[in-house]
Amino acid sequence: MQQPPLDPEALASESTAVMNFLAEYYRDVDKYPVRAANLEPGRLRALLPEAAPELGEPMEAVLEDVRRDILPGLTHWQSPRFFAYFPTNASAAGLAGEMLSAGLNVVPFLWAASPAAAELEAVVVDWMAQLFGLPRRFTFSGGGGGGGVLQGSTCEAAVCTLAAARDRQLARLGHEAIARLVVYSSDQTHATFQKGARLVGIPPSNFRVIPTSAASGYGLAAAAVREAVERDAAAGLVPLYLCATVGTTGLCAVDPVRELGEVARAHGMWMHVDAAFAGSAAVCPEFQGYLDGAELADSVSMNPHKWFLTNMDCCCLWVAEPRALISALSTDPEYLKNVGIDDNTGKPAAIDYKDWQISMTRRFRAIKLWVVLRRYGAAGMRAHIRRHVAAAQWFEQAVEADERFQVVVPRRFSLVCFRLAPRRCVHVGDDADAANRANRDLLAAVNASGQAFMTHFVVDGKFLLRLAVGGASTELQHVKEVWELLQSMADQVLQRYHQT
Amino acid sequence: MQQPPLDPEALASESTAVMNFLAEYYRDVDKYPVRAANLEPGRLRALLPEAAPELGEPMEAVLEDVRRDILPGLTHWQSPRFFAYFPTNASAAGLAGEMLSAGLNVVPFLWAASPAAAELEAVVVDWMAQLFGLPRRFTFSGGGGGGGVLQGSTCEAAVCTLAAARDRQLARLGHEAIARLVVYSSDQTHATFQKGARLVGIPPSNFRVIPTSAASGYGLAAAAVREAVERDAAAGLVPLYLCATVGTTGLCAVDPVRELGEVARAHGMWMHVDAAFAGSAAVCPEFQGYLDGAELADSVSMNPHKWFLTNMDCCCLWVAEPRALISALSTDPEYLKNVGIDDNTGKPAAIDYKDWQISMTRRFRAIKLWVVLRRYGAAGMRAHIRRHVAAAQWFEQAVEADERFQVVVPRRFSLVCFRLAPRRCVHVGDDADAANRANRDLLAAVNASGQAFMTHFVVDGKFLLRLAVGGASTELQHVKEVWELLQSMADQVLQRYHQT
Repeated sequence: MQQPPLDPEALASESTAVMNFLAEYYRDVDKYPVRAANLEPGRLRALLPEAAPELGEPMEAVLEDVRRDILPGLTHWQSPRFFAYFPTNASAAGLAGEMLSAGLNVVPFLWAASPAAAELEAVVVDWMAQLFGLPRRFTFSGGGGGGGVLQGSTCEAAVCTLAAARDRQLARLGHEAIARLVVYSSDQTHATFQKGARLVGIPPSNFRVIPTSAASGYGLAAAAVREAVERDAAAGLVPLYLCATVGTTGLCAVDPVRELGEVARAHGMWMHVDAAFAGSAAVCPEFQGYLDGAELADSVSMNPHKWFLTNMDCCCLWVAEPRALISALSTDPEYLKNVGIDDNTGKPAAIDYKDWQISMTRRFRAIKLWVVLRRYGAAGMRAHIRRHVAAAQWFEQAVEADERFQVVVPRRFSLVCFRLAPRRCVHVGDDADAANRANRDLLAAVNASGQAFMTHFVVDGKFLLRLAVGGASTELQHVKEVWELLQSMADQVLQRYHQT
Repeated sequence: MQQPPLDPEALASESTAVMNFLAEYYRDVDKYPVRAANLEPGRLRALLPEAAPELGEPMEAVLEDVRRDILPGLTHWQSPRFFAYFPTNASAAGLAGEMLSAGLNVVPFLWAASPAAAELEAVVVDWMAQLFGLPRRFTFSGGGGGGGVLQGSTCEAAVCTLAAARDRQLARLGHEAIARLVVYSSDQTHATFQKGARLVGIPPSNFRVIPTSAASGYGLAAAAVREAVERDAAAGLVPLYLCATVGTTGLCAVDPVRELGEVARAHGMWMHVDAAFAGSAAVCPEFQGYLDGAELADSVSMNPHKWFLTNMDCCCLWVAEPRALISALSTDPEYLKNVGIDDNTGKPAAIDYKDWQISMTRRFRAIKLWVVLRRYGAAGMRAHIRRHVAAAQWFEQAVEADERFQVVVPRRFSLVCFRLAPRRCVHVGDDADAANRANRDLLAAVNASGQAFMTHFVVDGKFLLRLAVGGASTELQHVKEVWELLQSMADQVLQRYHQT
């Protein structure tokens, strides 16, 4: 190490080198195959030395290795032609915010360990709640006693709220009752809630996956939940927690928040609203209706790192009763007591965010989300969302207008679920399997082309393709291009099926 | 938004503005009061608007607000005169790595979602294990079936390993047995293990906190663990998990890893070795002895973000049997199936890291740690550690040479635990309380001066001050200065006690 590790000149020169590298990357990202070109396991390991270097190497050498060895093995999540999973947004402001977070490198786990960082977080989650039209009970400034926290992922939010709900019940029933607690979700709910329930010690057999159907747009029917809850209660079990999703991962289905909230209230269950992806759309008033009834929930979460121009990672979790969260998650060892602070304050304004999350330690995520909101403003975020919704709308209409294809589930936000229409496959097999095989082939062909990356889903036995529009650089033009690609590949796929 | 959010020019100009801001920050950081100057709750909220701006604002305005409103409310964790808690390192290379992680913004949750990112992680945790002299069974390349993962914190590592241990036992005993599982730690173990045990559903009453004493240097005595385990087993409980710490948070005490491992083995318990802070020292051969016996452990963790020049957040977790971790944490929903990959591979080389951690989603942390190792090399890291150990050694000797002070626990790494010696306080109260009050006053005076920030601990009823040397910019000179400060303040404090 020639220079001290935090020498301002070293900091500036290394950051400049990376910044130039990234600017070049974004100039070229559209030229890379979207899905990693290199899918042979062990390939990168074979290129790298077996041990860390003994002596430090120059930054240029490191970046050259990134360019040569690592980039070809990455799937380019920031490509404008990345339509897989859900998007994971990056932006110039998000990166700037991340640099501030990593650069200042403070640890706001206790309020006293960086008061402004804890307070900025409380302010920014309030701003977000307001932008999305969430009930005032979820904000610090609302006066109802609620508030929010920034976590890393929905999974963390699931674990924390499940633990809070669990401990609220066990305080009443005793710990032995843990084996009688039951968690409810739909067959479209993200798997993380099942993982979370298991993590907090709920027996896996007490996780209810309630089927949905096309009739409700794959939303969770309140009547079905009520029935399951009553059956469990009659059997001596304890209904604990219900997850309602606004924008499920497979299909972007929406559960009826108000109706589910009423069931949850009637049975003393904790209801969580998971709006991980689609929650971002609620920055536009025309999408806020999907959150109607959220005042009946105990907690709500959404991920700015998905579709809100905030680089990984960032998940807003709002709770109506922070006390329930804190009871389950607080610790107070001697080495964390706020020496010199406790005596003067003890006010609710001083939030020790370590008691609102799994980990003690935490990053200064608030500054990242705050920079994004400052730089783009509410109007900029609405334009960002509407641009993608309009592009998805265009794609949906194009699919509907082509008789080889069909839209499988009506589009609600910016995800289009579509497939080659079965009527075109009866020539080759006269069964649903043939249609599924054709769609599987189509997806494989698109992804192998490197010109776009999409993922699939299966509903009611139908294999479908998902076009998730939402990449920070994705414009209508890219959606039009992927449609052209799909059209030409559909011909090839269907032709192949004719020949066999 | 005037420019697209990932426009390369926007990216470059915003990053440059932040980089200049950070370079200026690091030029000045030594001038700020180390602990936040502003400790009045609600102060930042009062300065900020009640809602997010409607229109975007220029980066300069945002950075000006950071400078004016936020910096005075931060505790400067990167100040060379930050000696509190444990250090949280930043470095030019760590920031560069963080910029690459955030800039590329890929999500290596599945191997297929970015193969090179998953593989770089597997390689870099192997490099780290090798640098620290960990047994080969914890590495992928060792051939023993083990391997590592990068998580965000020790807390996450605790939750994951506790869940793995729990599910290994419950698979044998049935879920009802969760109420009989018991976790063991010492009274010096980090509170996160207690929090983690509670999170995974172990009854809080089944968490054993075994007392330590000065006789063992506050290390956990294997005999005491054996006794507790046998008592529990005789009572029909199931010993589950034992945490051994190398470098406890309060005193940097070291538990006898080999002896504890033998007890754990004998009773079929999972043993975790928590080397969060002090693990970094094992990059130097002279400190590797503290990890002797680690081959008896099921898992080991350490945090490069503490004392290894890697910006927040980064925790290495190694496990001997990944299968146990994966059994507890895996999910396999349809939307995550590796289309087009599964058929060709299925090899262990393809690691889906989402099954090695709490969350599904994850950041590309590996590139950050890899950049640090490349830039500084093993030799650079050893020099970094030895520089701090030498400074702490100097401080320890200075304390010992001053009759007003005493070293409370022998120094092992770079933490010195010391206090005003009670013999000086008998003048004012003739009891231990007076000595504690004097030391509390001394700490408050140091922190209020803004010239250094330290935290305290209490052991055997003694309030002591902790000088944790390890900040990336901390040099011997800063340690000498804080000693001068302590000496002059000691006079004032003792004088005050004489006067009252």
